[in-house]
Amino acid sequence: MSIRIGILGYGNLGRGVECAVKHNPDMETVAVFTRRDPESLNILTPGAACVSVNDIAEWRDKIDVLVICGGSATDLPIQTPEYVKLFNVVDSFDTHARIPEHFANVDRAAKESGKIGFISVGWDPGMFSLNRMYTQAILTNGSDYTFWGRGVSQGHSDAIRRIDGVKNAKQYTIPVEVALDSVRRGENPALTTREKHTRECFVVLEDGADASRIEEEIKNMPNYFADYDTTVHFITEEELMRDHGGIPHGGFVIRSGKTGWNDEHSHIIEYSLKLDSNPEFTASVIVAYARAAYRMANEGQSGCKTVFDVPPAYLSYMSGDELRAKLL
Amino acid sequence: MSIRIGILGYGNLGRGVECAVKHNPDMETVAVFTRRDPESLNILTPGAACVSVNDIAEWRDKIDVLVICGGSATDLPIQTPEYVKLFNVVDSFDTHARIPEHFANVDRAAKESGKIGFISVGWDPGMFSLNRMYTQAILTNGSDYTFWGRGVSQGHSDAIRRIDGVKNAKQYTIPVEVALDSVRRGENPALTTREKHTRECFVVLEDGADASRIEEEIKNMPNYFADYDTTVHFITEEELMRDHGGIPHGGFVIRSGKTGWNDEHSHIIEYSLKLDSNPEFTASVIVAYARAAYRMANEGQSGCKTVFDVPPAYLSYMSGDELRAKLL
Repeated sequence: MSIRIGILGYGNLGRGVECAVKHNPDMETVAVFTRRDPESLNILTPGAACVSVNDIAEWRDKIDVLVICGGSATDLPIQTPEYVKLFNVVDSFDTHARIPEHFANVDRAAKESGKIGFISVGWDPGMFSLNRMYTQAILTNGSDYTFWGRGVSQGHSDAIRRIDGVKNAKQYTIPVEVALDSVRRGENPALTTREKHTRECFVVLEDGADASRIEEEIKNMPNYFADYDTTVHFITEEELMRDHGGIPHGGFVIRSGKTGWNDEHSHIIEYSLKLDSNPEFTASVIVAYARAAYRMANEGQSGCKTVFDVPPAYLSYMSGDELRAKLL
Repeated sequence: MSIRIGILGYGNLGRGVECAVKHNPDMETVAVFTRRDPESLNILTPGAACVSVNDIAEWRDKIDVLVICGGSATDLPIQTPEYVKLFNVVDSFDTHARIPEHFANVDRAAKESGKIGFISVGWDPGMFSLNRMYTQAILTNGSDYTFWGRGVSQGHSDAIRRIDGVKNAKQYTIPVEVALDSVRRGENPALTTREKHTRECFVVLEDGADASRIEEEIKNMPNYFADYDTTVHFITEEELMRDHGGIPHGGFVIRSGKTGWNDEHSHIIEYSLKLDSNPEFTASVIVAYARAAYRMANEGQSGCKTVFDVPPAYLSYMSGDELRAKLL
């Protein structure tokens, strides 16, 4: 029998989950839940239901794992502890600083309901976290570095769009090659924010807007741009749609460390991602962890879990015998 | 209290384990076991014992995890099932084709004794296997590639040394850049053995040996060299010691895959290692899994385990709270 997946929220991530489920033969998307009018959704999966989130409790016994595709700022802190009362859930909560609090809330609710609640699944947090953890456990004497990009930052693009006179915008985060190369050579550089990443902005102006004022506002925006070398390009809406329609991303986790009785040997571990579609890749990670949630729940486990807490084999559709024979 | 580590076998790997334990403050090397005269060993750890392997049973309650540093061809198939009767153990068994059989033997013995037996821990098998597994579970629709090198292959170096007239030799396995680049571009090339790696040999001749006959013998050696483009350099013993004294290695695991309802987006995941010392890095991985073995045994688990079977958090000295706050 297939693992029955429900999807809550049908934006880029929700649609990515639907696509990822299609690529996993042991799973099926059975329902998409929405705060919008369910009739208005055009989902891709033949036979799956579109349901108002108000009716979600009726699906309690018809879904094995609910993937919650809300935003980290306001949706997930409410939704994940709430829905783990009814379902095994997976979310991609990515406000790093608030993870301990989110974990505690989900853990409490999940232990009460006897369900599994996976939080912060994706690539950062997610696969990048795993690589930071594995490499630190192996090369205990060393330093690690996370670089992001080249890729679109939704938060930074939104920040530009909020500026008066801006019609549309897309912002790329770009790792600085010379910093990456220094890290790869094991030089353990101390890098400032400015030395690690640059920011490139493509901006469409409203008619009659003052380009130079807007460029200054972007470059001096605290938290978002002031600490970076930022380039601003003004382009037409047509150019934005044509050349910047995608949501690519990626990045690097690099650890360099020393071994030997007198630290005489150097080692570099590098993990990198180059992604055409950030939400579809994130969704693909989430779906593998949905399989793990299903298996852990079937074993009688409950509580909040992260990528640190599950044996890797639980993510794969292969059996232990098959994994050992083919992949070890 | 520290995790008490015993080391069986004191070659490059055993010494690497001793160095790795030094870099893990929650562990200590308490004894090194040897088939040689224990008096003849010069170990590095002040206060650790050098003990004949014949007396190993007396250490049953004085060691938490025994790291078995024998060879995969003849030592480990005997040693690991034998010593898991007395100790939690970790080995680095690397004969990929015989892993299922080794697993079954160790699992049977470990379940009887109530101990944990980790097998095939290192980087390949080990970290490379993990990356093959994680990436396949995430990008189910794709291909992956493992490249090794640039690094010293002990087996190939030994094969050259067995040729009549060869005094000493070192062999490097080298990944072919053009193949690597094609994989990184997501072209999913079908690669022959010859297209993936080349082999470079540095050979010291016995006095009066026939260089051209030896070069032919190397290049045509079945399994080891015949399927590769091989370069042979004849050098002096001094040059070999001066320029080829190290044991560097490394390699790449790359998976490219498609997502989207119609496979419209491409993704590349790349994991790479660049190691000054193959045995010291392998030992560093092993020691992290020794910590996991200790924790699993304390929980009452038993049986044979691989890198696929343990939650990543078990490898780290950090608590779950600390991991979530700092690394997720």
